[in-house]
Amino acid sequence: MPDPGPDPAQARAEVEAVNAAFYAAFEQGDLDAMGALWLDAPDTVCVHPGAMPVRGAGAVHRSWALVMAHTSYIQFFLTDVEVSLRADVATLTCTENVLTGDDRTGPDVFGGAKALATQVFVRTPDGWRLWVRHAAPVLSDADDDDE
Amino acid sequence: MPDPGPDPAQARAEVEAVNAAFYAAFEQGDLDAMGALWLDAPDTVCVHPGAMPVRGAGAVHRSWALVMAHTSYIQFFLTDVEVSLRADVATLTCTENVLTGDDRTGPDVFGGAKALATQVFVRTPDGWRLWVRHAAPVLSDADDDDE
Repeated sequence: MPDPGPDPAQARAEVEAVNAAFYAAFEQGDLDAMGALWLDAPDTVCVHPGAMPVRGAGAVHRSWALVMAHTSYIQFFLTDVEVSLRADVATLTCTENVLTGDDRTGPDVFGGAKALATQVFVRTPDGWRLWVRHAAPVLSDADDDDE
Repeated sequence: MPDPGPDPAQARAEVEAVNAAFYAAFEQGDLDAMGALWLDAPDTVCVHPGAMPVRGAGAVHRSWALVMAHTSYIQFFLTDVEVSLRADVATLTCTENVLTGDDRTGPDVFGGAKALATQVFVRTPDGWRLWVRHAAPVLSDADDDDE
Protein backbone atom coordinates (compact mmCIF):
# COMPACT_ATOMS: atom_id res chain seq x y z
CA MET A 1 0.00 0.00 0.00
CA PRO A 2 1.45 3.40 -0.89
CA ASP A 3 2.66 5.52 1.94
CA PRO A 4 0.27 8.38 2.73
CA GLY A 5 3.15 10.84 2.64
CA PRO A 6 5.71 12.30 4.97
CA ASP A 7 3.19 13.44 7.55
CA PRO A 8 -0.25 11.78 7.57
CA ALA A 9 -1.45 13.87 10.51
CA GLN A 10 -0.65 17.06 8.63
CA ALA A 11 -2.29 15.73 5.48
CA ARG A 12 -5.45 14.91 7.43
CA ALA A 13 -5.52 18.39 8.92
CA GLU A 14 -5.06 19.93 5.47
CA VAL A 15 -7.88 17.85 4.02
CA GLU A 16 -10.19 18.75 6.89
CA ALA A 17 -9.37 22.43 6.39
CA VAL A 18 -10.23 22.24 2.67
CA ASN A 19 -13.42 20.41 3.56
CA ALA A 20 -14.34 23.12 6.06
CA ALA A 21 -13.62 25.75 3.40
CA PHE A 22 -15.98 23.92 1.06
CA TYR A 23 -18.87 24.18 3.52
CA ALA A 24 -17.99 27.78 4.36
CA ALA A 25 -18.10 28.69 0.65
CA PHE A 26 -21.48 26.95 0.32
CA GLU A 27 -22.90 28.69 3.39
CA GLN A 28 -21.64 32.07 2.23
CA GLY A 29 -22.74 31.56 -1.37
CA ASP A 30 -19.19 32.39 -2.41
CA LEU A 31 -18.94 30.93 -5.90
CA ASP A 32 -15.34 32.05 -6.46
CA ALA A 33 -14.18 30.41 -3.25
CA MET A 34 -16.16 27.29 -4.13
CA GLY A 35 -14.66 27.12 -7.62
CA ALA A 36 -11.11 27.43 -6.32
CA LEU A 37 -11.54 24.34 -4.13
CA TRP A 38 -12.24 21.96 -7.01
CA LEU A 39 -9.71 20.13 -9.12
CA ASP A 40 -9.59 21.86 -12.52
CA ALA A 41 -9.94 18.67 -14.55
CA PRO A 42 -12.39 17.05 -16.98
CA ASP A 43 -12.94 14.12 -14.62
CA THR A 44 -13.98 16.20 -11.63
CA VAL A 45 -17.37 14.92 -10.48
CA CYS A 46 -20.12 16.31 -8.24
CA VAL A 47 -23.24 14.37 -7.30
CA HIS A 48 -25.76 16.77 -5.79
CA PRO A 49 -28.33 15.00 -3.55
CA GLY A 50 -30.74 12.88 -5.59
CA ALA A 51 -29.25 13.98 -8.90
CA MET A 52 -27.14 12.42 -11.60
CA PRO A 53 -23.40 13.23 -11.62
CA VAL A 54 -22.15 16.53 -12.97
CA ARG A 55 -18.82 15.88 -14.70
CA GLY A 56 -15.99 18.28 -15.51
CA ALA A 57 -14.79 21.31 -13.55
CA GLY A 58 -16.68 23.79 -15.73
CA ALA A 59 -19.99 21.98 -15.42
CA VAL A 60 -19.47 21.48 -11.68
CA HIS A 61 -18.83 25.22 -11.31
CA ARG A 62 -22.02 26.07 -13.20
CA SER A 63 -23.99 23.61 -11.09
CA TRP A 64 -22.86 25.43 -7.95
CA ALA A 65 -23.94 28.76 -9.41
CA LEU A 66 -27.39 27.24 -9.85
CA VAL A 67 -27.48 25.66 -6.38
CA MET A 68 -26.39 28.91 -4.76
CA ALA A 69 -28.95 30.92 -6.73
CA HIS A 70 -31.67 28.68 -5.31
CA THR A 71 -30.41 28.63 -1.72
CA SER A 72 -31.53 31.55 0.39
CA TYR A 73 -30.06 30.22 3.59
CA ILE A 74 -28.09 27.14 4.49
CA GLN A 75 -25.93 26.17 7.41
CA PHE A 76 -24.14 22.91 8.09
CA PHE A 77 -23.28 21.19 11.31
CA LEU A 78 -20.82 18.50 10.36
CA THR A 79 -20.50 15.34 12.40
CA ASP A 80 -18.68 12.03 11.91
CA VAL A 81 -15.92 13.61 9.83
CA GLU A 82 -13.51 10.81 8.90
CA VAL A 83 -10.48 11.14 6.63
CA SER A 84 -8.60 8.27 4.98
CA LEU A 85 -5.39 8.60 2.99
CA ARG A 86 -3.72 6.65 0.20
CA ALA A 87 -0.75 8.39 -1.36
CA ASP A 88 -1.96 11.63 -2.95
CA VAL A 89 -5.64 10.84 -2.59
CA ALA A 90 -7.83 11.36 0.47
CA THR A 91 -11.40 10.28 1.04
CA LEU A 92 -13.55 12.04 3.61
CA THR A 93 -16.99 11.09 4.81
CA CYS A 94 -19.14 13.34 6.95
CA THR A 95 -22.69 13.74 8.04
CA GLU A 96 -24.21 17.05 6.96
CA ASN A 97 -26.78 18.20 9.48
CA VAL A 98 -28.50 20.88 7.47
CA LEU A 99 -30.23 24.03 8.62
CA THR A 100 -32.07 25.77 5.79
CA GLY A 101 -34.55 28.56 5.35
CA ASP A 102 -36.68 29.98 2.59
CA ASP A 103 -38.99 32.98 2.22
CA ARG A 104 -41.59 31.47 4.50
CA THR A 105 -39.46 29.84 7.18
CA GLY A 106 -36.95 31.94 9.05
CA PRO A 107 -33.37 30.81 9.43
CA ASP A 108 -34.12 29.92 13.04
CA VAL A 109 -36.19 26.93 11.97
CA PHE A 110 -34.18 23.75 11.98
CA GLY A 111 -34.99 21.85 8.84
CA GLY A 112 -33.66 18.66 10.33
CA ALA A 113 -32.42 17.34 7.01
CA LYS A 114 -29.44 15.06 7.19
CA ALA A 115 -27.18 14.09 4.34
CA LEU A 116 -24.10 11.96 4.00
CA ALA A 117 -21.24 13.25 1.89
CA THR A 118 -18.33 11.33 0.48
CA GLN A 119 -15.62 13.67 -0.76
CA VAL A 120 -12.47 12.59 -2.57
CA PHE A 121 -9.53 15.00 -2.59
CA VAL A 122 -6.34 14.96 -4.66
CA ARG A 123 -3.08 16.51 -3.52
CA THR A 124 -1.83 19.09 -6.01
CA PRO A 125 1.15 21.48 -5.91
CA ASP A 126 -1.38 24.11 -4.75
CA GLY A 127 -2.88 21.95 -2.01
CA TRP A 128 -5.70 19.45 -1.77
CA ARG A 129 -8.52 19.86 -4.28
CA LEU A 130 -11.95 18.27 -4.53
CA TRP A 131 -12.01 15.59 -7.19
CA VAL A 132 -15.28 13.80 -6.43
CA ARG A 133 -18.22 14.72 -4.20
CA HIS A 134 -21.25 12.50 -3.64
CA ALA A 135 -23.90 13.84 -1.30
CA ALA A 136 -27.14 12.01 -0.56
CA PRO A 137 -29.93 12.09 1.99
CA VAL A 138 -29.76 9.91 5.07
CA LEU A 139 -33.03 8.23 5.99
CA SER A 140 -33.80 7.50 9.63
CA ASP A 141 -32.74 4.00 10.48
CA ALA A 142 -31.38 1.86 13.24
CA ASP A 143 -27.92 3.40 12.95
CA ASP A 144 -29.33 6.81 13.55
CA ASP A 145 -30.95 7.31 16.90
CA ASP A 146 -29.48 10.66 17.83
CA GLU A 147 -32.26 13.02 16.80
CA MET B 1 -0.51 15.32 -11.11
CA PRO B 2 0.64 11.74 -10.58
CA ASP B 3 0.79 9.54 -13.61
CA PRO B 4 -2.07 7.01 -13.64
CA GLY B 5 0.43 4.19 -14.29
CA PRO B 6 2.10 2.50 -17.21
CA ASP B 7 -1.15 1.68 -18.98
CA PRO B 8 -4.24 3.72 -18.08
CA ALA B 9 -6.43 1.83 -20.56
CA GLN B 10 -5.54 -1.45 -18.90
CA ALA B 11 -6.11 0.02 -15.45
CA ARG B 12 -9.55 1.24 -16.51
CA ALA B 13 -10.44 -2.20 -17.87
CA GLU B 14 -9.25 -3.82 -14.64
CA VAL B 15 -11.31 -1.43 -12.51
CA GLU B 16 -14.40 -2.01 -14.65
CA ALA B 17 -13.91 -5.76 -14.32
CA VAL B 18 -13.71 -5.55 -10.52
CA ASN B 19 -16.79 -3.33 -10.55
CA ALA B 20 -18.66 -5.88 -12.67
CA ALA B 21 -17.56 -8.62 -10.26
CA PHE B 22 -18.98 -6.56 -7.39
CA TYR B 23 -22.44 -6.43 -8.99
CA ALA B 24 -22.24 -10.11 -9.98
CA ALA B 25 -21.46 -11.05 -6.36
CA PHE B 26 -24.40 -8.94 -5.16
CA GLU B 27 -26.79 -10.45 -7.71
CA GLN B 28 -25.68 -13.98 -6.87
CA GLY B 29 -25.71 -13.40 -3.12
CA ASP B 30 -22.12 -14.64 -3.05
CA LEU B 31 -20.79 -13.26 0.22
CA ASP B 32 -17.33 -14.81 -0.18
CA ALA B 33 -16.88 -13.29 -3.62
CA MET B 34 -18.17 -9.96 -2.28
CA GLY B 35 -15.79 -10.01 0.67
CA ALA B 36 -12.79 -10.73 -1.52
CA LEU B 37 -13.41 -7.57 -3.57
CA TRP B 38 -13.03 -5.18 -0.65
CA LEU B 39 -9.82 -3.69 0.68
CA ASP B 40 -9.00 -5.46 3.94
CA ALA B 41 -8.43 -2.29 5.95
CA PRO B 42 -9.92 -0.43 8.90
CA ASP B 43 -10.73 2.58 6.72
CA THR B 44 -12.77 0.68 4.16
CA VAL B 45 -16.18 2.36 3.94
CA CYS B 46 -19.56 1.35 2.53
CA VAL B 47 -22.57 3.66 2.43
CA HIS B 48 -25.68 1.61 1.68
CA PRO B 49 -28.53 3.70 0.19
CA GLY B 50 -30.03 6.07 2.75
CA ALA B 51 -27.85 4.73 5.57
CA MET B 52 -24.93 5.99 7.58
CA PRO B 53 -21.45 4.75 6.62
CA VAL B 54 -20.27 1.30 7.65
CA ARG B 55 -16.56 1.52 8.42
CA GLY B 56 -13.92 -1.21 8.48
CA ALA B 57 -13.63 -4.32 6.32
CA GLY B 58 -15.16 -6.61 8.95
CA ALA B 59 -18.20 -4.42 9.52
CA VAL B 60 -18.64 -3.92 5.77
CA HIS B 61 -18.58 -7.70 5.29
CA ARG B 62 -21.22 -8.20 7.98
CA SER B 63 -23.38 -5.49 6.43
CA TRP B 64 -23.35 -7.38 3.13
CA ALA B 65 -24.39 -10.58 4.89
CA LEU B 66 -27.38 -8.68 6.22
CA VAL B 67 -28.22 -7.04 2.87
CA MET B 68 -27.98 -10.37 1.06
CA ALA B 69 -30.14 -12.11 3.67
CA HIS B 70 -32.87 -9.55 3.00
CA THR B 71 -32.61 -9.58 -0.80
CA SER B 72 -34.56 -12.35 -2.49
CA TYR B 73 -33.86 -11.14 -6.00
CA ILE B 74 -31.87 -8.28 -7.43
CA GLN B 75 -30.48 -7.53 -10.83
CA PHE B 76 -28.55 -4.49 -12.02
CA PHE B 77 -28.38 -2.84 -15.38
CA LEU B 78 -25.46 -0.46 -15.17
CA THR B 79 -25.32 2.66 -17.27
CA ASP B 80 -23.07 5.73 -17.35
CA VAL B 81 -20.04 3.81 -16.05
CA GLU B 82 -17.16 6.30 -15.83
CA VAL B 83 -13.69 5.59 -14.45
CA SER B 84 -11.12 8.19 -13.42
CA LEU B 85 -7.56 7.44 -12.36
CA ARG B 86 -4.98 9.13 -10.14
CA ALA B 87 -1.92 7.02 -9.43
CA ASP B 88 -3.05 3.93 -7.51
CA VAL B 89 -6.58 5.16 -6.86
CA ALA B 90 -9.54 4.95 -9.22
CA THR B 91 -12.98 6.45 -8.84
CA LEU B 92 -15.93 5.00 -10.70
CA THR B 93 -19.43 6.37 -10.95
CA CYS B 94 -22.31 4.43 -12.41
CA THR B 95 -26.07 4.45 -12.51
CA GLU B 96 -27.63 1.34 -11.01
CA ASN B 97 -30.90 0.53 -12.74
CA VAL B 98 -32.32 -1.97 -10.29
CA LEU B 99 -34.66 -4.89 -10.88
CA THR B 100 -35.86 -6.46 -7.64
CA GLY B 101 -38.41 -8.98 -6.50
CA ASP B 102 -39.79 -10.26 -3.25
CA ASP B 103 -42.20 -13.02 -2.21
CA ARG B 104 -45.16 -11.20 -3.70
CA THR B 105 -43.69 -9.77 -6.88
CA GLY B 106 -42.05 -12.08 -9.34
CA PRO B 107 -38.60 -11.31 -10.74
CA ASP B 108 -40.26 -10.24 -13.98
CA VAL B 109 -41.58 -7.06 -12.37
CA PHE B 110 -39.30 -4.11 -12.98
CA GLY B 111 -38.98 -2.16 -9.80
CA GLY B 112 -37.76 0.86 -11.67
CA ALA B 113 -35.52 2.00 -8.86
CA LYS B 114 -32.46 3.92 -9.87
CA ALA B 115 -29.41 4.58 -7.74
CA LEU B 116 -26.12 6.33 -8.26
CA ALA B 117 -22.97 4.68 -6.98
CA THR B 118 -19.58 6.22 -6.43
CA GLN B 119 -16.94 3.55 -5.90
CA VAL B 120 -13.32 4.23 -5.03
CA PHE B 121 -10.79 1.49 -5.76
CA VAL B 122 -7.19 1.12 -4.62
CA ARG B 123 -4.56 -0.80 -6.56
CA THR B 124 -2.99 -3.56 -4.45
CA PRO B 125 -0.46 -6.29 -5.32
CA ASP B 126 -3.50 -8.57 -5.70
CA GLY B 127 -5.41 -6.21 -7.98
CA TRP B 128 -7.88 -3.38 -7.49
CA ARG B 129 -9.94 -3.49 -4.32
CA LEU B 130 -12.97 -1.49 -3.19
CA TRP B 131 -11.99 1.12 -0.65
CA VAL B 132 -15.12 3.29 -0.53
CA ARG B 133 -18.63 2.78 -1.89
CA HIS B 134 -21.41 5.34 -1.66
CA ALA B 135 -24.74 4.35 -3.18
CA ALA B 136 -27.81 6.55 -3.06
CA PRO B 137 -31.18 6.85 -4.78
CA VAL B 138 -31.56 9.05 -7.83
CA LEU B 139 -34.73 11.12 -7.91
CA SER B 140 -36.27 11.97 -11.26
CA ASP B 141 -35.08 15.32 -12.42
CA ALA B 142 -34.24 17.36 -15.46
CA ASP B 143 -30.94 15.55 -16.00
CA ASP B 144 -32.70 12.27 -16.23
CA ASP B 145 -35.05 11.89 -19.18
CA ASP B 146 -34.06 8.43 -20.36
CA GLU B 147 -36.74 6.29 -18.71
